[in-house]
Amino acid sequence: MPMEDHATAVLRWDESAEGAPKLVLLDQTRLPAEEVELVCKDVSDLVAAIRALSVRGAPLLGVTGGYGVALAAALGEDVAEAADRLASSRPTAVNLASGVRRVERAYRAAVGGGAGDEQAAAAALAEAKALHGEDAAASTRMAHLGRELLGELLPGRRLRLLTHCNTGRLVSGGRGTAFAVVSAVHDAGDLERLWVDETRPLLQGSRLTAYEAEREGMPYSVLADSAAGSLFAAGQVDAVLIGADRIAVDGSVANKVGSYPLAVLARHHGVPFLVVAPVTTVDGATENGRDIVVEQRPAGEVTQISSPSQPAGIAVGGGSVRLAPNGAEAYNPAFDVTPPHLVTAIVTEAGVVSPVTRETVAGLCSPSRTRTSRWGNGMMNA
Amino acid sequence: MPMEDHATAVLRWDESAEGAPKLVLLDQTRLPAEEVELVCKDVSDLVAAIRALSVRGAPLLGVTGGYGVALAAALGEDVAEAADRLASSRPTAVNLASGVRRVERAYRAAVGGGAGDEQAAAAALAEAKALHGEDAAASTRMAHLGRELLGELLPGRRLRLLTHCNTGRLVSGGRGTAFAVVSAVHDAGDLERLWVDETRPLLQGSRLTAYEAEREGMPYSVLADSAAGSLFAAGQVDAVLIGADRIAVDGSVANKVGSYPLAVLARHHGVPFLVVAPVTTVDGATENGRDIVVEQRPAGEVTQISSPSQPAGIAVGGGSVRLAPNGAEAYNPAFDVTPPHLVTAIVTEAGVVSPVTRETVAGLCSPSRTRTSRWGNGMMNA
Repeated sequence: MPMEDHATAVLRWDESAEGAPKLVLLDQTRLPAEEVELVCKDVSDLVAAIRALSVRGAPLLGVTGGYGVALAAALGEDVAEAADRLASSRPTAVNLASGVRRVERAYRAAVGGGAGDEQAAAAALAEAKALHGEDAAASTRMAHLGRELLGELLPGRRLRLLTHCNTGRLVSGGRGTAFAVVSAVHDAGDLERLWVDETRPLLQGSRLTAYEAEREGMPYSVLADSAAGSLFAAGQVDAVLIGADRIAVDGSVANKVGSYPLAVLARHHGVPFLVVAPVTTVDGATENGRDIVVEQRPAGEVTQISSPSQPAGIAVGGGSVRLAPNGAEAYNPAFDVTPPHLVTAIVTEAGVVSPVTRETVAGLCSPSRTRTSRWGNGMMNA
Repeated sequence: MPMEDHATAVLRWDESAEGAPKLVLLDQTRLPAEEVELVCKDVSDLVAAIRALSVRGAPLLGVTGGYGVALAAALGEDVAEAADRLASSRPTAVNLASGVRRVERAYRAAVGGGAGDEQAAAAALAEAKALHGEDAAASTRMAHLGRELLGELLPGRRLRLLTHCNTGRLVSGGRGTAFAVVSAVHDAGDLERLWVDETRPLLQGSRLTAYEAEREGMPYSVLADSAAGSLFAAGQVDAVLIGADRIAVDGSVANKVGSYPLAVLARHHGVPFLVVAPVTTVDGATENGRDIVVEQRPAGEVTQISSPSQPAGIAVGGGSVRLAPNGAEAYNPAFDVTPPHLVTAIVTEAGVVSPVTRETVAGLCSPSRTRTSRWGNGMMNA
């Protein structure tokens, strides 16, 4: 299956070759210019790859960190020390540390239970694979529920879907979040076109989402973020699908800057605005949208454009291009916050939340997992 | 006055030096990296400069074309032939041809009236200067009326204004349109901050508006176009000011892509959305917004970014950076259309139109020029 080939390419535990196992990553800093595999032979290689952003995206970092611990165990490295190095290689990536610690716990439990080195390493690898599998399963479930929801909202037609930023395989152990829904629609032959916001300033749309759309053979077009307005005005957008960095208890959605203007445009034009994210994205410590502090990122991201890192001399160019005068200040928020009343539904692996309110979001996170059988009925225990 | 120095730098008729007169342009293709004057010694130099986009912007091209005819006359070139070459150097630039023909008519009238070569050349130059002066006067009048309007809409406070694309001296014989209003607010000490949309895909905001803001010593910040939503949500935008490429009879405004989403955001947040444009922007042949055909521009403008043309080896970098996969399609409309009900007011040199309706726009274009004495009273004869 092409899906599996592609999934393998993004992150792959390789024990088929002679010698010790390796973790093989698709080097995302070289995309879309080149597909280069990065072979991590030990934890130091992997820490370097994480620091260099060769691998990125919250869920995928968790899975990667888990495999990193398994690699340390398989090679006979000091697992506790390796786990610390991995967990701190990107300090703000909560999923990374969480994946690392989960696999480390499985390793320790095996050791505590009297397992030998080889058995404990096998336990660590099994846990990393379980984490990977759960992530992929959540992605598959979100894709299914999202596609079902679109079928109910917009029955009997091929869809023109608009997305922002990058939410596919490159950030996930599976097919991703919002992009996974698009993939499911495409697999069913129902995708008329994917509109890909380029996603300034870091251009994850042009660079990564367009690459993923190309790989899956989707009909797609890249656009300047502000050209989305023209698409809405022309009636060319059937639904907007985005991911989420964090969802507050009241249902406010923090996501890549540029998501909120799409929500306002979608409301103005009566177009569904769907957020696709795993349940773990809901942050119980964040009461509402006002509690979310939006960090400002460096001005240079806006005032100049860097090319993907790549060997010198190849056709796509290199270096960076300065756009604004020297010394220009920039307003460069990392993300924006969409209030719940502008979100038509939140699609999670545990069910679809709609309408999005404090109550329906709470239902999602209650110990007895809830889900809706049909969109529009609110949350129901299942 | 700094204003005049700056105006001179963008376009300057130079007869101070020894020898023949020259037309001196600020080479806009080198901005913002460098301020380089381009000396046009004859019509061929000027045609080359126009073709290379060293000089651009509808009103400024009209003024430039007018001076081109005066230059031909002063040098004893064939004026009719020079006028044809100038007028066709950018075929779609209506203002260019219009400025060229106006000065050519003045030259012919002088010749027809028995003037000698020198007198006819002087008549041509006088007409070019008159055109330049009228353009500057219209700009000054728009700046005054726009600032007055802002004072009425938002009394007694320093203003945070958001603008899109480039509408200042670099496109005008004067201080521009929307940017001229910002300049007037700044001159009065009432500008708290100018928010400069970078204006993808061609980045006229980062490259040119930021340069103009820097030159005028304004407090300003460049932002990714889609970050404007965060500014609105944070209550950081007091008003939006844009120019216009064309205004239909019903008051629909065609302007750089990205204007319409700002209008929707402004309405969602109750922020005034002001269009500043000379009366000539109203196109009597375009009945309404639906009649405006939006051309698609080349995909490469979105899928790669080129640096300003400049000598190799300087610090700002050069060449172009590919952003999307090879072969990526792009949706790249040249402009978008904002319906009249989202426009708070249109500020022209002949008065302020508000509310914007077929009737108030018609009043603006009637033979007896109309204007409002105060915003909000609709059109009144004056």
